[in-house]
Amino acid sequence: MSLNTLHELMVEQLKDLYSAETQIVKALPKMIEASSAPALTEALRSHLTETEGQVARLEEIFRSLDESPSGEKCQGMEGLLKEAKHLLKEHSPPSVRDAGIIADAQRVEHYEIAAYGSAKAFAKLMGHDRIVALLDQTLEEEMAADRTLSAIAEGGVNEAALAAVGA
Amino acid sequence: MSLNTLHELMVEQLKDLYSAETQIVKALPKMIEASSAPALTEALRSHLTETEGQVARLEEIFRSLDESPSGEKCQGMEGLLKEAKHLLKEHSPPSVRDAGIIADAQRVEHYEIAAYGSAKAFAKLMGHDRIVALLDQTLEEEMAADRTLSAIAEGGVNEAALAAVGA
Repeated sequence: MSLNTLHELMVEQLKDLYSAETQIVKALPKMIEASSAPALTEALRSHLTETEGQVARLEEIFRSLDESPSGEKCQGMEGLLKEAKHLLKEHSPPSVRDAGIIADAQRVEHYEIAAYGSAKAFAKLMGHDRIVALLDQTLEEEMAADRTLSAIAEGGVNEAALAAVGA
Repeated sequence: MSLNTLHELMVEQLKDLYSAETQIVKALPKMIEASSAPALTEALRSHLTETEGQVARLEEIFRSLDESPSGEKCQGMEGLLKEAKHLLKEHSPPSVRDAGIIADAQRVEHYEIAAYGSAKAFAKLMGHDRIVALLDQTLEEEMAADRTLSAIAEGGVNEAALAAVGA
């Protein structure tokens, strides 16, 4: 892949995000299955549906640019999800595992907040108004998902983990 | 490593951050060398000094907990820095490369914002006031670094990249 222009850099960022989102769609079911607090399970399930919509938005963007979404595997997201999988292998009390799942999921959200922010800034400067609007919808969803995870952690999961006495 | 309690999860998060920060200290000089906009070079240089201070803060935290900072390599940061290194191999016009370096650096900042946020929430709940204060100082620095990078991107780097005509 060549990166000679801002347009090419934007397309590269979008391909990175497409790879990241499709990796998340595959990883979330394992995190949902491993979670135990009902509010967390529900938030992750709802975010899986949301993520599928985000993939569809990226596909619409690629069609509008007459570009293919396929590219190299996003190594950043690969690393984040390796960490998340590693946690799921631990034999932890359910509440400690929930607190860890939230910490991992918030790293994933923040990756996306940074990446959508950059892609949106590039698209905006090049006057791609429709693409900016689509990226902005997703960016708002990611920021809301991050806030929801913080609220779930502080709304009982962390306290339950503090009370856990070990596996 | 066992993750049976919130304390163990907090220590694991701190070890992850220690590994992440030491990886960043090694990677930043290459990003500094590859950057061309003076404001970006200066911001990355200043963040390298700041990161060394963040490593020292983590070392103080480990001493106060009577724990060793060594642990497994942070795979999340490893992936993010692989992406950043990949970009530096491209033969891009300097301004396009600068815009890409900022996008990669903001992913790194957001990883840390998420990770310090989780570690701080755990420390707070367990009443580790001094640790909370140290983590909060770093968290504020990471958020400020992220805002600085956005300002540099929007303050000329992205426009210069838009004007670039290809390598």
